[in-house]
Amino acid sequence: MNYLDHAATTPMRPEALAAFMAAHAVAGNPSSLHAGGRQARRAVEESREALAGVLGCRPSELIFTGGGTESDNLALKGLYWARRAADPRRRRVLVSAVEHHAVLDPAHWLEQSQDAVLELLPVDETGLVSPRTLAAALCAGDGPDDVAVVSVMWANNEVGTVQPVAELAELSHAHGVPFHTDAVQAFGQVPLGFTDSGVDAMTVTAHKIGGPVGIGALLLRRGLTVTPLTHGGGQERDVRSGTLDAAGAAAFAAAAQAAASGLPAEAARLASLRDELVRQVLAAVPTAVLNGAPPGPGRLPGNAHLSFPGCEGDSLLMLLDARGIECSTGSACTSGVARPSHVLLAMGAGEPSARGSLRFSLGHTSTAADVEAVVAAIAPVVDRASRAGELAGLGGT
Amino acid sequence: MNYLDHAATTPMRPEALAAFMAAHAVAGNPSSLHAGGRQARRAVEESREALAGVLGCRPSELIFTGGGTESDNLALKGLYWARRAADPRRRRVLVSAVEHHAVLDPAHWLEQSQDAVLELLPVDETGLVSPRTLAAALCAGDGPDDVAVVSVMWANNEVGTVQPVAELAELSHAHGVPFHTDAVQAFGQVPLGFTDSGVDAMTVTAHKIGGPVGIGALLLRRGLTVTPLTHGGGQERDVRSGTLDAAGAAAFAAAAQAAASGLPAEAARLASLRDELVRQVLAAVPTAVLNGAPPGPGRLPGNAHLSFPGCEGDSLLMLLDARGIECSTGSACTSGVARPSHVLLAMGAGEPSARGSLRFSLGHTSTAADVEAVVAAIAPVVDRASRAGELAGLGGT
Repeated sequence: MNYLDHAATTPMRPEALAAFMAAHAVAGNPSSLHAGGRQARRAVEESREALAGVLGCRPSELIFTGGGTESDNLALKGLYWARRAADPRRRRVLVSAVEHHAVLDPAHWLEQSQDAVLELLPVDETGLVSPRTLAAALCAGDGPDDVAVVSVMWANNEVGTVQPVAELAELSHAHGVPFHTDAVQAFGQVPLGFTDSGVDAMTVTAHKIGGPVGIGALLLRRGLTVTPLTHGGGQERDVRSGTLDAAGAAAFAAAAQAAASGLPAEAARLASLRDELVRQVLAAVPTAVLNGAPPGPGRLPGNAHLSFPGCEGDSLLMLLDARGIECSTGSACTSGVARPSHVLLAMGAGEPSARGSLRFSLGHTSTAADVEAVVAAIAPVVDRASRAGELAGLGGT
Repeated sequence: MNYLDHAATTPMRPEALAAFMAAHAVAGNPSSLHAGGRQARRAVEESREALAGVLGCRPSELIFTGGGTESDNLALKGLYWARRAADPRRRRVLVSAVEHHAVLDPAHWLEQSQDAVLELLPVDETGLVSPRTLAAALCAGDGPDDVAVVSVMWANNEVGTVQPVAELAELSHAHGVPFHTDAVQAFGQVPLGFTDSGVDAMTVTAHKIGGPVGIGALLLRRGLTVTPLTHGGGQERDVRSGTLDAAGAAAFAAAAQAAASGLPAEAARLASLRDELVRQVLAAVPTAVLNGAPPGPGRLPGNAHLSFPGCEGDSLLMLLDARGIECSTGSACTSGVARPSHVLLAMGAGEPSARGSLRFSLGHTSTAADVEAVVAAIAPVVDRASRAGELAGLGGT
């Protein structure tokens, strides 16, 4: 099996599995006062410190959550509710048009049911949000006094484009508006410095860096108030109630440390594999097009996203899968539903190109053999899918 | 170490740990279309079926969540929002006064910020909600047409009182109101039949039955609409977005099957240990009082909750902890904050008695040695704590 879908989820790292198992030697709820409880709490706090070290934030700024979707929802809804309660004029929510559904969908819900006004920030043909676009949006309407929150992802999950997050955060601050970024895809691929970047809130999750599913975090700048999504026992300074997951936190921290310690070298290794994949696929299928930013600092090192005009992405995916090659047509969360990618459409792609694309994403277990497998399979697979596409009346090349 | 705090969290069962590790042999996001994704999805769906079998619901009625607190919040807020959207008169939220904070706090939040009217249903001196109390509340105000949701827990987390859930659900239905129950403490201790009980929504969580922290479920009767708490990728029929946790689900299902298969015998074993603990503690400390329902079907088999007049619960807890005995003063989620239990206060206890109590909760690893350790320690510990209490001016006996 050649697994090239690390952006959907990546295998748990041995360090993370070991930390998970070790944490289970202790019986105790981290909120309990007895020795076992205190020991479990210590595991949580040590994990928080380790993660804060990797992410460049204070430990007190890291709120454990159940994962990236929850963190994004907490950031969007929590900041909207809190900022709106402090000043009822703050109804506008500004998010990029290429956000993950975990940001887009809560933003739409705020508009539909919580009286927000949603504005999608357009992107250029590589998926980039220009600072000028954000500046114009902040000043539109009644001006920035009516903006509740801005959210632009650190890097895109489909095409890997890295956004100018520090610049966008600075612009938001100049207008007094908090800035959230979904860094789920960026974490483990490019260095993230929470404090240095100037962002106010950042989403990360464990299972994209080799930790377990079911735990993530929202980093929240000190002093920033959010309304909780879940109320209850008052864990995580009342921002996120729910039993603290000591084993999950330990595994998350172990994965983060493993990912960070190898990062510069690993990023170079992935970029080199990815460049080889792109070069050889374009050579094998001359009609293919690389989407997103050109390889370099503006693109995640593990991401290759290609359109194959005249083909259906799902057909390509299934034909490759039959040859033991696992990849994606876009975000795992929405594949399964045959609709063109909102990311590619926002980048100006036509619907045929948006439907006929594949994402190959590399990660810690990727090898040259994975790239070779794709290269060997891609021409016959595209040939077969494009013949099926012609029968189905898709525009060929 | 003698661990008597299973109601806070219980050690992971070997079957659950094995299922967790086995699931990690597969790389794949359950939403991905390739072979690894489909295999992970199969693990999720088989776990759903196994849990549905244990819980007496249809597989399609089980929504995986991040745990009990999230399930409670989703039930309360989700039903309130959905019912209110369908009929703006539905503003009243009826919950028992002895609910866990994971139900009470979202209910308070709905009142404070979402225009709900919260009514706490009083309980008797054993912590029981009488059907007459609920009937009166349903008919009060403008009558049941203005009630959004009723929530009464299956069994109380502090004193173990089992509520007449089926009767309360039937009453709610007679008035056209959906009924939610938090069954977090009941699961694994008493048989739960979702369909048979007639409830519309039920919260359960894995880590109280020997599964991992970070996964739980909300059971939702077919056809009932809830507004999601987290929006995003559209997993779990759009009710709960977020990457599906295949390994967590497999471990949850393995724990549930292990708990259910041994249940009648295990409940009898726990009740017998618990009865012995209560009998001998009352013999050693004649001023002690057992709180809650008398041992029998009206009380969870693993629960013993005792007041020691003239003592501070935290002092008792720490003195026992120093002897290797781990227990709780009430709910783990709020211990650490020195305030009397809202459950005991609702049952009519005076503040001194509410402050001077301990919960011993038994579970799958409990043995007679745990009981013997408590019995050997309790008289000297109470003696020492009551002398400290006299110095602090607490009413002695």
